[in-house]
Amino acid sequence: MKFYENVDGLTEASGFFCAGIHCDVRGKRDGRIDLGIVYSKRPCSGAGVFTTNDVKAAPVLHGQALLAEGSEFHAIVVNSGNANACSGPQGEVDTRTMASEVARQLRLKAEQVFVCSTGRIGEPLPMSRITAGIRDAVQDIEDGVDGGMGFQQAILTSDTTTKSCLAEFETTDGTVRVAGVAKGSGMIEPNMATMLAFIVTDACLPSQLLQDTLKIATEKTFNRITIDGDMSTNDTVLALANGFSNVNVSEKTPDILADFQTAVEKVCACLARKMIGDGEKVTKLIELVVNGAPNDAAAEKVARNIANSLLVKTSWYGSDPNWGRIVDAAGYAKVGVDFSKMELFYNEIPVLDKGKALTRNKDKWKEVVAEKQFSIHLDLNLGQGECNLLTTDLSEAYVDFNKSE
Amino acid sequence: MKFYENVDGLTEASGFFCAGIHCDVRGKRDGRIDLGIVYSKRPCSGAGVFTTNDVKAAPVLHGQALLAEGSEFHAIVVNSGNANACSGPQGEVDTRTMASEVARQLRLKAEQVFVCSTGRIGEPLPMSRITAGIRDAVQDIEDGVDGGMGFQQAILTSDTTTKSCLAEFETTDGTVRVAGVAKGSGMIEPNMATMLAFIVTDACLPSQLLQDTLKIATEKTFNRITIDGDMSTNDTVLALANGFSNVNVSEKTPDILADFQTAVEKVCACLARKMIGDGEKVTKLIELVVNGAPNDAAAEKVARNIANSLLVKTSWYGSDPNWGRIVDAAGYAKVGVDFSKMELFYNEIPVLDKGKALTRNKDKWKEVVAEKQFSIHLDLNLGQGECNLLTTDLSEAYVDFNKSE
Repeated sequence: MKFYENVDGLTEASGFFCAGIHCDVRGKRDGRIDLGIVYSKRPCSGAGVFTTNDVKAAPVLHGQALLAEGSEFHAIVVNSGNANACSGPQGEVDTRTMASEVARQLRLKAEQVFVCSTGRIGEPLPMSRITAGIRDAVQDIEDGVDGGMGFQQAILTSDTTTKSCLAEFETTDGTVRVAGVAKGSGMIEPNMATMLAFIVTDACLPSQLLQDTLKIATEKTFNRITIDGDMSTNDTVLALANGFSNVNVSEKTPDILADFQTAVEKVCACLARKMIGDGEKVTKLIELVVNGAPNDAAAEKVARNIANSLLVKTSWYGSDPNWGRIVDAAGYAKVGVDFSKMELFYNEIPVLDKGKALTRNKDKWKEVVAEKQFSIHLDLNLGQGECNLLTTDLSEAYVDFNKSE
Repeated sequence: MKFYENVDGLTEASGFFCAGIHCDVRGKRDGRIDLGIVYSKRPCSGAGVFTTNDVKAAPVLHGQALLAEGSEFHAIVVNSGNANACSGPQGEVDTRTMASEVARQLRLKAEQVFVCSTGRIGEPLPMSRITAGIRDAVQDIEDGVDGGMGFQQAILTSDTTTKSCLAEFETTDGTVRVAGVAKGSGMIEPNMATMLAFIVTDACLPSQLLQDTLKIATEKTFNRITIDGDMSTNDTVLALANGFSNVNVSEKTPDILADFQTAVEKVCACLARKMIGDGEKVTKLIELVVNGAPNDAAAEKVARNIANSLLVKTSWYGSDPNWGRIVDAAGYAKVGVDFSKMELFYNEIPVLDKGKALTRNKDKWKEVVAEKQFSIHLDLNLGQGECNLLTTDLSEAYVDFNKSE
């Protein structure tokens, strides 16, 4: 399997077209690209994973309804700068208007068009500017403008870079490509956060199988990153498969299915890592492994408590190898941890051996925690449960950045 | 009922003696008062509420064992600067040594002496200095030195002020006093945090009734504050009642029992408020009320999610009336909230009316959130569940302060 990062975007998969234009969603006249469309002329099967927040933005509810009812999809329209969340009945109308405008201009049915919005909560969408933007974006697609990079830019909010990758594998029937782009930054937590990710492939497979593949991949990747513990109202991962490669993916061809699953997971994992590396004002990337828990759920609870503890995160920021705060956070997960059984490592350097601090290694701990990227491994020695998380430190700049919007 | 703040300390209740001395727990030779003793010549009934963290410091385990077995108590010894947590079998030996040293010097039994430690996790206690300190503190008590304020200082870590109060009420049998002192600061969360609180009274009541009273009061006060969501390994609230007033508190005299309960709650509430007001690098104090939840547990979950959201806390710090982040945090509590039913108020100013933002009030919202102290009231309009929490903002200075110890 071949794998590439920082590619042109979703246009890398055959038969997908993209556009990204400026329509001034934010009302700042700054020329920022803020509306994008992905389009496949051939009908696609579709799949989606959405925020589990009780408060779901209008486009999330709309996307869930499309997947529940529809079977063929052609396009996704995305705006940044406004989340269309907590926007009441008008927000739902606006989402439907975005879908039907795209459909009208591309001669599709409204129920074949997904909508995503990301940005500030609680503001009405500037619909006349968005409608004009949709017209411009469709024009670009019809003119054959190469909009792969424009689409990547259109979905960004506080991200500092675009995020894309491509997995490619060969079959006897031809080459399959799985391309992905994403945006992340703040509000990044379990079960999605203000994150949007779009995966497209030219493989040919039914929606249900695409959904199963995406769900497994999401659980292992996007749901295993956390920056600030805040889960957003808009998180969405959408996948489209247009069959352009003429390669069938099905349970009847297990080798191809396995390759396809791997390709989707690699794309999701790469996007998740890019997202967390570009987290708001993050200075360090920490790979956290908790194993030896009574079960996987317990391991995850311990891992999330550690990863989201302010005291742990600030100590990472300060390059302080403060294992006491890690143990404390593990303890208040209340899954029955026993300090006298714990083994802890910073990278490969032992910190705790069955609850005994190996203080002779202290200088080495400090070296590890001073790095930009390191791993922390906590073995609870209680059972077989395990969880891996990717997380970050917490900087003063994060507080400064988020103190007002 | 009379109520006083910033009093001399636990010596305000009749028959209690205190000392606070410097014994250099931190090894910094800075003269800081870091070891304190409370002593009652008359035997006391006792009660305690402790951290629910799986990882409990040695003195917490020791205190729980004393209460389970013992019936008469005389003293509490406390050191700051070292938590004696995650300190293995040696930590347990050190705690017992502290109790037996106090007992020996004051001619008590070791099982009549509680021990509390607060400070850094995972360092061995400097026992020779602590033993010398116990000798000095006992000497002060025997010399009749007025150590009420010294004890208050001895228990502080990153606190910037001492915290004490006194409730006093009359009965036909005489006056009852309930005095309390506490320390708080970082790691302040539900179910106790690196917080220690000591309540003493000259009322006469059995341990079980004192325990019931303390438990109710703690639930309503100390367990309703949160600064950073980190629950410590050492949190302890201890109560002693020495009967010096000759006023009996029992279920046979419901008026006196009610007054006593009120007095204890007032003392705990006052100490909790002082604790949170002196939270590490806090600039604002927020009273959060969530009502209309399906039940009290759901209300508490929503309230804690709001109070511990980094994005909500940083917006308060920045005086940004960002109701979207509050709604988002309520949503990921996943108790089934419905945005279209929510009513939200900053102080008395309406923000959301059944999911509709009252943007005409925007300037007034900003005025409220710019204040040093304000309330936020979220009515979910779903049921009768309710929860009040006291919480704080999150400042850049908090991150800076905690980035290393």
